[in-house]
Amino acid sequence: MPPVLDFWFDFASTYSYPAAVRIGRLATEAGVQVRFRPFLLGPIFKAQGWDTSPFNLYPAKGRHMWRDLERLCEDLGLPFCRPEPFPQNSLLAARVALAGMGQGLGQGLGQGLGQGWGQGWGEAFSVAVYRAQFAEGRRIDEPATLVAILSGLNVDAKAALDRAQSDDNKLRLRAETEEAQRLGVFGAPTFTTAGGELFWGNDRLEQALRWAKRGS
Amino acid sequence: MPPVLDFWFDFASTYSYPAAVRIGRLATEAGVQVRFRPFLLGPIFKAQGWDTSPFNLYPAKGRHMWRDLERLCEDLGLPFCRPEPFPQNSLLAARVALAGMGQGLGQGLGQGLGQGWGQGWGEAFSVAVYRAQFAEGRRIDEPATLVAILSGLNVDAKAALDRAQSDDNKLRLRAETEEAQRLGVFGAPTFTTAGGELFWGNDRLEQALRWAKRGS
Repeated sequence: MPPVLDFWFDFASTYSYPAAVRIGRLATEAGVQVRFRPFLLGPIFKAQGWDTSPFNLYPAKGRHMWRDLERLCEDLGLPFCRPEPFPQNSLLAARVALAGMGQGLGQGLGQGLGQGWGQGWGEAFSVAVYRAQFAEGRRIDEPATLVAILSGLNVDAKAALDRAQSDDNKLRLRAETEEAQRLGVFGAPTFTTAGGELFWGNDRLEQALRWAKRGS
Repeated sequence: MPPVLDFWFDFASTYSYPAAVRIGRLATEAGVQVRFRPFLLGPIFKAQGWDTSPFNLYPAKGRHMWRDLERLCEDLGLPFCRPEPFPQNSLLAARVALAGMGQGLGQGLGQGLGQGWGQGWGEAFSVAVYRAQFAEGRRIDEPATLVAILSGLNVDAKAALDRAQSDDNKLRLRAETEEAQRLGVFGAPTFTTAGGELFWGNDRLEQALRWAKRGS
């Protein structure tokens, strides 16, 4: 069994865009298996007393983040387009992503929906949602965008949305968010290892993979 | 004239420790002149509604920061010792550092006090204060620590403290803090270029030097 790294993300998280786009290749190179774990930052932010993104609550921090992300994407050769509005409601996208995750979460999610995705289509869907929002400026809070992404992945969009909105899947997303909070997740992207290490931020992706690889 | 990068720091800032220790060699390699600009985060945090470090206000964020800094220092080969208490009042240390800055700030500070420091002794003092706090666990809010550091640099400690506590120097530190705020500084370390780019965090030091070098 390869070492595992958990990748916790919320679709409204800006720095999760470069992380989501980069993690597949870097994990393959490191020989680490990544589990995509969508969750919701909203309840975690609320517990900290915030009712929206800290980048909106603290304007100087927000101005830096947008410019920093723009510079970062330029360095990485990634297209970048500032989403409007920000943040966008990520609830439906997170439910759909979770519904598409395969054995990665050990619960057989996505079975029967994926076509050619060994572990479900959730990972490819997640990367596509980040690209749609941050490279193409599309609205990820609109079901039509998610339907188009699913169709592009050869996934039955209606079946996927039905499963995403099932009570079982809703509860599962809530449980994932609670698990994130229990682990000490306070922002996204966050990476956690089996050994209990927690790394916050796209800047820590390479380091997190190194720690996962050596079994820490 | 070499390109210039401004390095904004508060002595209570944890990630400014690796930045302060690393910046000298990296700037020399890049051919960039660094101006050390001590300021106070307190008034900036207050304006954001915080009365102490965000790492204390948000415990999960704080827990991650300490572990992250520990891992980071290990990777960099830097000794690390978590300071107690945290944060420590950095006002006197900032005043002393500012009093020791030379032509770097273009105001002739530190003249007549430095011995062998072309640009005053403020830079060496600043690095030593970070090492005292984060490598040796010493109290930087105690004048005795600052006196010992000054003496170790062959600086007349009494003259330095007198100058640090002069009305002129106090006003200068206030003006520097206001300038930081005007530039959009919201945390430390922060790096700013002549072209108006602002980089936040030790993780951005190398990138900031690249931007300064190409004149941006």
